[in-house]
Amino acid sequence: MKTMKKYVYHFSEGNKEMNALLGGKGANLAEMTSLGVNVPPGFTITTEACRDYYVQEKTLSDDVKDQIDTALSTLEQTIGKRLGDTENPLLVSVRSGSVFSMPGMMDTVLNLGLNDETTEALARQNNDKKFAYDSYRRFIQMFSDVVMGIEKYRFEQVLAEVKRENCIAHDRDLSANLLLSIIERFKDIYFKETGNRFPTDVKEQLLLTVEAVFKSWNNQRAKVYRKLNNISDSLGTAVNVQAMVFGNMGNTSGTGVCFSRNPVDGTKVLFGEYLIDAQGEDVVAGIRTPQPIETLKEELPQVYEELVRVVEKLENHYKDMQDIEFTVENNRLYLLQTRNAKRTAKAAVEVAVTLVDEGILTKEEAILRITTDDINKLLHPTFDEKALKEATLLATGLAASPGAAVGHIYFTAQEAVKASKEKNVILLRQETSPEDIEGMVSSQAIVTSTGGMTSHAAVVARGMGKCCVCGCQNLVIDEQAKTVRIEDTILREGDMLSVDGSTGCIYLGEIKQASAVKQESFARLMTWVDEIRELMVYVNADNAHDTQVGLSFGAAGVGLCRTEHMFFEENRIGLVRKMILSNDLESRLVFLNQLEVIQRDDFYQMFNVLNGKSINIRLLDPPLHEFLPHEEKQIVALSKELGCSREELEAKIASLSEFNPMMGHRGCRLGVTYPEVYLMQAKAISSAAIQAKKEGVDVHVEIMIPLVSVVEELVFLKTQIEHLVESQIEESGVSFQYKIGTMIEIPRACFIADQLAEHAAFFSFGTNDLTQLTYGYSRDDASKFIDIYKQKHILAHDPFVHLDESGVLSLIKMAKEKAKKVNPNIKIGVCGEHGGDEKSVILCGKIGLEYVSCSPYRVLIAKLAAAKAAILKK
Amino acid sequence: MKTMKKYVYHFSEGNKEMNALLGGKGANLAEMTSLGVNVPPGFTITTEACRDYYVQEKTLSDDVKDQIDTALSTLEQTIGKRLGDTENPLLVSVRSGSVFSMPGMMDTVLNLGLNDETTEALARQNNDKKFAYDSYRRFIQMFSDVVMGIEKYRFEQVLAEVKRENCIAHDRDLSANLLLSIIERFKDIYFKETGNRFPTDVKEQLLLTVEAVFKSWNNQRAKVYRKLNNISDSLGTAVNVQAMVFGNMGNTSGTGVCFSRNPVDGTKVLFGEYLIDAQGEDVVAGIRTPQPIETLKEELPQVYEELVRVVEKLENHYKDMQDIEFTVENNRLYLLQTRNAKRTAKAAVEVAVTLVDEGILTKEEAILRITTDDINKLLHPTFDEKALKEATLLATGLAASPGAAVGHIYFTAQEAVKASKEKNVILLRQETSPEDIEGMVSSQAIVTSTGGMTSHAAVVARGMGKCCVCGCQNLVIDEQAKTVRIEDTILREGDMLSVDGSTGCIYLGEIKQASAVKQESFARLMTWVDEIRELMVYVNADNAHDTQVGLSFGAAGVGLCRTEHMFFEENRIGLVRKMILSNDLESRLVFLNQLEVIQRDDFYQMFNVLNGKSINIRLLDPPLHEFLPHEEKQIVALSKELGCSREELEAKIASLSEFNPMMGHRGCRLGVTYPEVYLMQAKAISSAAIQAKKEGVDVHVEIMIPLVSVVEELVFLKTQIEHLVESQIEESGVSFQYKIGTMIEIPRACFIADQLAEHAAFFSFGTNDLTQLTYGYSRDDASKFIDIYKQKHILAHDPFVHLDESGVLSLIKMAKEKAKKVNPNIKIGVCGEHGGDEKSVILCGKIGLEYVSCSPYRVLIAKLAAAKAAILKK
Repeated sequence: MKTMKKYVYHFSEGNKEMNALLGGKGANLAEMTSLGVNVPPGFTITTEACRDYYVQEKTLSDDVKDQIDTALSTLEQTIGKRLGDTENPLLVSVRSGSVFSMPGMMDTVLNLGLNDETTEALARQNNDKKFAYDSYRRFIQMFSDVVMGIEKYRFEQVLAEVKRENCIAHDRDLSANLLLSIIERFKDIYFKETGNRFPTDVKEQLLLTVEAVFKSWNNQRAKVYRKLNNISDSLGTAVNVQAMVFGNMGNTSGTGVCFSRNPVDGTKVLFGEYLIDAQGEDVVAGIRTPQPIETLKEELPQVYEELVRVVEKLENHYKDMQDIEFTVENNRLYLLQTRNAKRTAKAAVEVAVTLVDEGILTKEEAILRITTDDINKLLHPTFDEKALKEATLLATGLAASPGAAVGHIYFTAQEAVKASKEKNVILLRQETSPEDIEGMVSSQAIVTSTGGMTSHAAVVARGMGKCCVCGCQNLVIDEQAKTVRIEDTILREGDMLSVDGSTGCIYLGEIKQASAVKQESFARLMTWVDEIRELMVYVNADNAHDTQVGLSFGAAGVGLCRTEHMFFEENRIGLVRKMILSNDLESRLVFLNQLEVIQRDDFYQMFNVLNGKSINIRLLDPPLHEFLPHEEKQIVALSKELGCSREELEAKIASLSEFNPMMGHRGCRLGVTYPEVYLMQAKAISSAAIQAKKEGVDVHVEIMIPLVSVVEELVFLKTQIEHLVESQIEESGVSFQYKIGTMIEIPRACFIADQLAEHAAFFSFGTNDLTQLTYGYSRDDASKFIDIYKQKHILAHDPFVHLDESGVLSLIKMAKEKAKKVNPNIKIGVCGEHGGDEKSVILCGKIGLEYVSCSPYRVLIAKLAAAKAAILKK
Repeated sequence: MKTMKKYVYHFSEGNKEMNALLGGKGANLAEMTSLGVNVPPGFTITTEACRDYYVQEKTLSDDVKDQIDTALSTLEQTIGKRLGDTENPLLVSVRSGSVFSMPGMMDTVLNLGLNDETTEALARQNNDKKFAYDSYRRFIQMFSDVVMGIEKYRFEQVLAEVKRENCIAHDRDLSANLLLSIIERFKDIYFKETGNRFPTDVKEQLLLTVEAVFKSWNNQRAKVYRKLNNISDSLGTAVNVQAMVFGNMGNTSGTGVCFSRNPVDGTKVLFGEYLIDAQGEDVVAGIRTPQPIETLKEELPQVYEELVRVVEKLENHYKDMQDIEFTVENNRLYLLQTRNAKRTAKAAVEVAVTLVDEGILTKEEAILRITTDDINKLLHPTFDEKALKEATLLATGLAASPGAAVGHIYFTAQEAVKASKEKNVILLRQETSPEDIEGMVSSQAIVTSTGGMTSHAAVVARGMGKCCVCGCQNLVIDEQAKTVRIEDTILREGDMLSVDGSTGCIYLGEIKQASAVKQESFARLMTWVDEIRELMVYVNADNAHDTQVGLSFGAAGVGLCRTEHMFFEENRIGLVRKMILSNDLESRLVFLNQLEVIQRDDFYQMFNVLNGKSINIRLLDPPLHEFLPHEEKQIVALSKELGCSREELEAKIASLSEFNPMMGHRGCRLGVTYPEVYLMQAKAISSAAIQAKKEGVDVHVEIMIPLVSVVEELVFLKTQIEHLVESQIEESGVSFQYKIGTMIEIPRACFIADQLAEHAAFFSFGTNDLTQLTYGYSRDDASKFIDIYKQKHILAHDPFVHLDESGVLSLIKMAKEKAKKVNPNIKIGVCGEHGGDEKSVILCGKIGLEYVSCSPYRVLIAKLAAAKAAILKK
């Protein structure tokens, strides 16, 4: 037996949960209706009807037609008008409404129900022929376009001709007679194009329009939009049939838009604008200047009061700032739409916190409202929105590190450093390397043409809180010629560029900036965050300054100190290079001893800043050749210093180079093959700790052995380091707290996590490398195809940005479980770039990790995400 | 309460299972004794006594001393002689005996129990002063060396002096008087060196010697040996005290060694040699020429008969060919040692098969006796063993592909090809690349200075069954100068080299070769292997020839056809390069169409060879830049052909280069970004299949999509390929059997194996890449530190050689279980290099995989291993 499907719902029958069936707009109208807000009545034809329409090879079934008929009758009874009635005609709008918002992508027909006779009735009723004729000509035009596909310009031409012939400037100045002649000419066009007369049967008008809306689901621009926004093609659209109300019926009518609070700063005042005697189109057309909403209080006081009441009702109901559209028809207020309002970051925080104070939201709900993007905008400068609209977009890359910057472009670190003394500088490179650090420090922003979200440029820039756009593939940089080509534009050294690290956009010339804001409500929100979150948040910091920044954002300590970053500064890199290029242990030790003194001082300074907070120090990780010079000049200089020939030095550098350095001789593999390097670092740590302790500083060190894949590596190195530290302690008579643990970046380490946990006091997951190896994606190379993969929907997102749940997180979870079984006290967290990404942090919370660590400017983001993790886990 | 430990065991108390306590030698003597074989009686002081000796800071406890006393008394009673007796003195040997064989690493003292008085008694008893004095001087010499550490040369000097002074050539010509004077001078040396007289107390002699053996456990050469052979330092050694028997007591005495079968060909005849009136030393010294064992039958027929009986008893007992040492003292046969005999590969197979025929072994036991090495020696030429002993070893690398080759060295593929027309050639390269293929084909052997067991050279050479030594780090190749430096030796182009791919050794000049053998018993063994094994064995083959070779070894089909190998041949690589460098789809299609014709023919030929057997074809896998030229000349030539500037071409090549190509834009990532390439290959496959089918050839194709890490990759590509193949089938009206599946090389793929199995008809684990990513070891770079890791016992073995059980196998097992749950019919196996390695194949069997695939010359090894896997699983 066939069950009759319900294809049509009155607004009073639905609610906002029925999105999938009624579409977004339909569900919204139903929700408002059921709230008792005055919405023009109507009904929704479901998305299922649309899907079935396609299944039945684009025919409306009798079922659907019958249900539309019935619903229409009820609507007519409710409103006391009838579609096609020659005395009291009902006019309706017919609008599409898909499940996910697809603004402007599908079609709408207004004033449906007009024909020659009902138009005259409308004129009589309102005693206004111009209004009636104008409505009719608009209807013919829209119907012809939407339902019959007759191009709009045909009608616009006629309109323009008539105005020209009669020396009329604006549509509204057309007389009733002229409008009548236009209507006739419109009908002629319709006849010429379709071979039929314009339909006078209003039911026919309705059904044809419903079909047209269904068809519009598959028009070209809708298909493209869905592809771009990853919306399934199989959802279909609903159709909303709603009684028309008119804001253009004189001085007691009007139309407007309005926010329930100020969307710029979040203060609680009505914010919006309206036009008296106008339709929605007129506001958009911009011919008349709308009035601010406050004046409505005087012009139509009752309507204003009603508006205030309705807005408050909606805000309380949706528990969020609303953005509404309304029409007033003869002093009667109709709500056409309401939605959560777009707002600035500042307003977002202000509104969320105030709603908690007002008892509308819980603290948890407020926290869930704030996004990573909000925090970035609060912490970093942004471009002035208006200025941005007028700017010339040159190219788009990966939004690698947020912020907005303006400066003169330079192509090498050296030139950037030099120029930065006189002006703001933007460093443009194919990809940065550790040698470019000083140039990066001197620049306002960094832009690279290759490299992904965890490339050197991206990671270092985020660490500095500096604006960065990576992998901007359209840039063709010619370092020699000091030019960059972007499609047809060629820029030279010194030219101005504006860079938006939050969107990945690069603009020509200078754009006005808006600076970061401080806000009391934000501080309050963050105290709630700290109450609620369970995950500890540490900062990734390689020096005292970054540590200080991290602590100022409330980091619990340093979760990752990458000692190699200390190696690149000018006074050190020379020593490091000589150490690496030493031919025997003896001469290597000479340079190691010099490096030890320098490292000791670095650690000493960090211990002082941290005083009592813990620091996790990772021993040398990158392959040695990363420290060696690659440019001819530097090689020549170094060979002179080393007293060897350039060829010898080049041969040595070549012998250290690798086919796949990421999987090469690095991390603890260096520690095992050159134990003296790790021992130097351990000694620097322990002497610094002893010195600090002597001076009354509280020291908690975690010494981390990176890239372990075999338990013997950990045991071998731990034994040596422990021995060294203990003998230092014994010698000095001063002891300090230290633990030895390991970084987990290698899939195999996860499988032997139980073995490792017997020897490690902590695990810190290096999720960048773990993601690389789990996917087999080189983070330096993969951005090329990851982009294409996203376009083709092979990847939903870049796994270097959001932690992969199926693979990488499974490995982490397995490792955690194995480890806790043998060593319940082992401390386990994440120190990769994912530690500063909301989605990833939530996953870390989900599987019960204890902490995340991230770059200084992401500490607040991580904390917020940690609070969300705790909330979502419940 | 302290339990008295048993520190001393009579030979009659032990057996061969007590290895750990009695050491190898002690357990062996005990086993023989308990078998009723005539072994000179004695006792063993346990390894535990040795360990306790060290624990007690190098003192022999009273317990140990007491137990030695008691055991000695029993021994004296058994034999009817007493240690130190001046009438009927007992002499003993004291020998070390560790758990694992450490030949020559520790010390032995013979003739213990002699002093001035017992020596005279010995002389009287045997009526032979010379024999007695000679025994005494030998004892003093050995005792001084072993127990007191007095250097041997001191005694040798005296001996030489006396001989010179008396114009005597051989020791045996020394008169009794001269021997007496030598004894006195030996005693003087002892006194000078130690400050004490030579001990006359025979008990003291014994205990000092036992201690000396214990101490020898930690002498330098023993420690080094253990390190090299991965033997634990904490095991300790046992000490065997055994009554001396003398083969030098006249014409009814003698000594010899003997195999129970011929160790060269395995035939069942006694094989060995002996000397009448001689001690073991004399056989070794080589002064007298030993007689073949057959003549003993006439000389001492009873002894011979006894020997035959004993040997048979031992062979039946140990179920294997024995290698024994014996001494005859006055017509009485004593067995001093028996062990499983070393033998040639041919003998190994012959013996194992014959023992089955004799009912001594089961087929399964026989199979377990044969090693990979045996098969390699049967299949590949080897060096003549005698010639090898005299050869000059230049360097050692990785034994990458077995075989022995002699040839003239060349440093580039081109020169190798040219020279090969006139002589045998050996190709010497830093590392080979696909461009070198022709040079490799033309060479007898390939030697590289970098690269590991799965480097290009290794993999390709194994595929060709060609001798190869890789990662030979001591070679410093200067391609420009056409020389190679190996420590102090410099070789030039054209010089002769001998290469042993089975050992990784490289020798100067030409060494005589022994060629491979064919053998009936081997064929019988392989039929048993085929009966027993459960794993299917396929061959990795990229052309009809390799396919033919694989099938001739009994492969079930082709388990991996790497289509890219077809791209490198001379008539193709140009097209491939033009295809890659095409700027748009249109021009790319032109070259793809030309390539399709060529590939179609390749497949067609392979289908013909296989007729009915399946073939697994992997679509394009390596990154595109691997196909591009790297040498200046070739780049210039190609740029001319393409009609672009050299700079343009270089820029294009550079733009395709990657930091970590292994984790870059390759495999199905190319398929997704350039679908036209995979579709070309699919079309070539299906047209070839259709043509073959039309001609009555039975075709079973598996199309394999490599490097999948996200299920959407598989779905995307499978859909397109399926569509293409189906339309080809429809168009031609000829259908053929095909399946689409995936290669699993990425850790993440193992985690989503259930999702993949919904779409894949098979999984083929590419264990090379999976090992790379699981360990984070680049196989091109890791050989450097893997060597050091093995030396430092961080790694027990190279995971590219033997599959890693903890990590890689766990991933495979997890993937298999996930996959079988959703798709019980999915075919799962391994096609990486591990498919031809015994240990790895056994692991594959253990977790229930269905097949392995390996290079042609490893098919037999894989089959043998598969049989072992089945046997060991029971």
